[in-house]
Amino acid sequence: MDRDQFRAAAHAAVDDVINYFDGLPSQRVVPTIQPGYLRPQIPEHPPADPEEWSQIQADVESKIKPGLTHWQSPNFMAFFPANVTYPSILGEVYSAAFTAPAFNWLCSPACTELETVMMDWVAQALGLPQCFLSTSENGGGGVIQVSASDAIATVMVAARERRVREQALSEGLKEGSSEYEDRVMELRPKLVALGSTQTHSSTAKGALISGTRYRSVTPRLEDNMEMTGPGLRTVLEQCEKDGILPYYITLSMGTTSSCAVDRFAEITAVLKEKPSWQRIWVHIDAAYAGAALVADEWQYIANDFADGVDSFNMNMHKWLLVNFDASCLFVRNRFDLTDALDITPAYLRNHFSEMGQVIDYRNWSISLGRRFRALKIWFVMRTYGLNGMKAHIRRTIGLGNMFADLVRSRSDLFDIITKPVFCLTVFRIKNPKTYTNGTTAAKADEGSNALTKEVYELINARGEIFLTSTLVSGVYAIRVVSANPQADEKNVRRAFEIIVQTTEEVLQKQ
Amino acid sequence: MDRDQFRAAAHAAVDDVINYFDGLPSQRVVPTIQPGYLRPQIPEHPPADPEEWSQIQADVESKIKPGLTHWQSPNFMAFFPANVTYPSILGEVYSAAFTAPAFNWLCSPACTELETVMMDWVAQALGLPQCFLSTSENGGGGVIQVSASDAIATVMVAARERRVREQALSEGLKEGSSEYEDRVMELRPKLVALGSTQTHSSTAKGALISGTRYRSVTPRLEDNMEMTGPGLRTVLEQCEKDGILPYYITLSMGTTSSCAVDRFAEITAVLKEKPSWQRIWVHIDAAYAGAALVADEWQYIANDFADGVDSFNMNMHKWLLVNFDASCLFVRNRFDLTDALDITPAYLRNHFSEMGQVIDYRNWSISLGRRFRALKIWFVMRTYGLNGMKAHIRRTIGLGNMFADLVRSRSDLFDIITKPVFCLTVFRIKNPKTYTNGTTAAKADEGSNALTKEVYELINARGEIFLTSTLVSGVYAIRVVSANPQADEKNVRRAFEIIVQTTEEVLQKQ
Repeated sequence: MDRDQFRAAAHAAVDDVINYFDGLPSQRVVPTIQPGYLRPQIPEHPPADPEEWSQIQADVESKIKPGLTHWQSPNFMAFFPANVTYPSILGEVYSAAFTAPAFNWLCSPACTELETVMMDWVAQALGLPQCFLSTSENGGGGVIQVSASDAIATVMVAARERRVREQALSEGLKEGSSEYEDRVMELRPKLVALGSTQTHSSTAKGALISGTRYRSVTPRLEDNMEMTGPGLRTVLEQCEKDGILPYYITLSMGTTSSCAVDRFAEITAVLKEKPSWQRIWVHIDAAYAGAALVADEWQYIANDFADGVDSFNMNMHKWLLVNFDASCLFVRNRFDLTDALDITPAYLRNHFSEMGQVIDYRNWSISLGRRFRALKIWFVMRTYGLNGMKAHIRRTIGLGNMFADLVRSRSDLFDIITKPVFCLTVFRIKNPKTYTNGTTAAKADEGSNALTKEVYELINARGEIFLTSTLVSGVYAIRVVSANPQADEKNVRRAFEIIVQTTEEVLQKQ
Repeated sequence: MDRDQFRAAAHAAVDDVINYFDGLPSQRVVPTIQPGYLRPQIPEHPPADPEEWSQIQADVESKIKPGLTHWQSPNFMAFFPANVTYPSILGEVYSAAFTAPAFNWLCSPACTELETVMMDWVAQALGLPQCFLSTSENGGGGVIQVSASDAIATVMVAARERRVREQALSEGLKEGSSEYEDRVMELRPKLVALGSTQTHSSTAKGALISGTRYRSVTPRLEDNMEMTGPGLRTVLEQCEKDGILPYYITLSMGTTSSCAVDRFAEITAVLKEKPSWQRIWVHIDAAYAGAALVADEWQYIANDFADGVDSFNMNMHKWLLVNFDASCLFVRNRFDLTDALDITPAYLRNHFSEMGQVIDYRNWSISLGRRFRALKIWFVMRTYGLNGMKAHIRRTIGLGNMFADLVRSRSDLFDIITKPVFCLTVFRIKNPKTYTNGTTAAKADEGSNALTKEVYELINARGEIFLTSTLVSGVYAIRVVSANPQADEKNVRRAFEIIVQTTEEVLQKQ
């Protein structure tokens, strides 16, 4: 493909992308194809000879598009969103053109340096405490990771190593000696990572990867599924009894099921109660809801991160207008990462250089090479401006509140299960057999669970809108998320209509 | 940015990309900026209000391009290459537009299914044994990873878990019981991962991540820095004496320093000698050189992977025309990955579904979400065809052979240190003080090391070409790699002239 063929192909692809987005409102959200739909349509072997772009583009149209679930559709209200915007796509174009593994500064200075500056921009935009900026005296800073799973696995390995190193050094052992290695190996199996039953599964997976145990706190529906200080204390005390050593905890700002916000201040206060608890690495997973922090009225939440929090992650690729991947991880102390992940022997490490202007991000992540993802963040933040980003968050939260009000307006049909927040409403269908007017306590009820499941499955099978379900403390519930930049009031009202109609249809049938 | 603004911006960006590539031959490869060049040019805070694309694009030109190391320059002969091609950029455009976290089949069926089919195409193109295809009876298959580091960390975690599980189950313990967990924790600290001193650092980093020990075989210059069977046996026997348990080994097809190819058949024969050695997970890291397997004359190497090899990785984003990231990982048994990384409780796992048409790639990698990277692989393989890919490999290998011949033609100045292969020549400057005509034995020599270092640093400081140096068995050497699709005979001859002239200049000065 020469330059002129590329120009023509790229223009055609750009039109294709525009038409794709424009056509989304009238498309079914989830495709109707069945597993295995694609293989019969693709030759079994790669072609021997070159093919023309026109053939390839036609196949994107006829073979790929029919197999897409349309996350940008205004009728996609499932999971959490995965935004993409036009300036973000332009960032990918330049990132691909400037391809470089960027594993150290010299390999691509611009890639490294823009990432550092952009992570400071993001930290400021979110109102994060000063300690997470690259310019902080404590050696904090941000790094772009692929996903929250990568970010969490990375900090868990760093936390594990920090804990065993502290212990081995305090016993007078010398790093690099075989006694040190043996001691570290002896300590690791005692370590346990903590979360809650509502914590995203990436923490349990991070514990698998780092080879440590995992235990979870069980939040209660009465507490809106938030992890509390007393709840954590119970688990910490049980760990002591069992002779295992908590080294890491994930706290959530916005759990997957219901967007619960753990009680940060209460929890960090409990962690101060004992010297051994003070050494636990505290990570805040704000993968989705962290985006709300760009709006001033939510930034009070970040005040709780100033003390006792080691790291924080937020995925711009969910609700903040940058396409996957753009998971922003911030740490209070970069040496916690580099001490764990830099395979340069200790005697060659240079803290001065790491504190200085040269960052080797390979030592801040599992990957060695990295893409130039700071470009798309730069493009999006400038194209929207902070005010544009705040407006996006406020508008979508407004739609979420409107939806919650609609649900409340039909309290004859629905129970709201957890406090609606950050565009998410979690509700169930009331069981007419056990329903007493005025009752709002959301206790698990088999009839309601079955009803809710039936309504949910019928809506998704029909495919006009796409929702997800969840199980909260035994209550089967439907989740509706209105955080899509393409969705407006009309889409949200229509979704509610569909839910009401389907519910009435199912109730009548009974 | 609305659709019309996007169209105009994208057209401008495409022209910018074309002009960037066209201008590379006349550009200095490595920029002249100093660490910290960028921050003073970027506002300290993100803008409050939106900016126009024209302002952003102008900043890419004036602030980013001056800070790039140009990996696509025909004068870039350092490290290993990081190819990007026009069809690959088009793949990124569609991938961004179709953004979806794709963590399971339903989230984006096309993304999952195209990946499965493309990995089978790649396996066929490389002549990999049938066992690595998704259609194999043994449950093999491929998955796209970000980088070889991710691929290796992933298989090391899988190998660790396979080993401790086998042991715990053989002792009659039940998965999920606390006795099982305790036993697994007791076993892990005994595990040791193996590589050679020439193995890429990602294996040592993988051992850090998975929390296991790491030991390496020391290959000899007389063996062309290749790991041998007897060399490995010595280390295995030492591990036995030390009471530690080898569970994993990385073998290299193309080491980083000198592109050495470990002696696979000899090594897998040694691994058959003892029952405990037979349980070691064997991984082939062919991150760079694996691309050569698309050319029929190199496929004999892959015959050695049919027996005794558990996994293989090759990065298309190095020498195979697809931009970063496109690291292709193949495993013989997908359950080795899913058993280690699937956080679904054992009683909910469904091997039938995993063997069937639905793959959840989140359980084949550390990341949960993933980009639609199969598109760019599809676009590149169709645009080039297998014949075009073979021609690219053969042409660049031809350039490498030509360069090696040029070096040999000046045996008065240069010693070739290891066998030139896969576009790489590793050589040093002869020390005139110790040089005896006819001597080719490359023994470490302080004078030669200092000379070679001086020549190397002078060439890179002048910046017309960009090279890397290495230390092979104490010998300081220069590496020249000619695997860049933009480079032709003229560039390679010019590089050689620069090396000769600089060498003569340094020698005269002495």
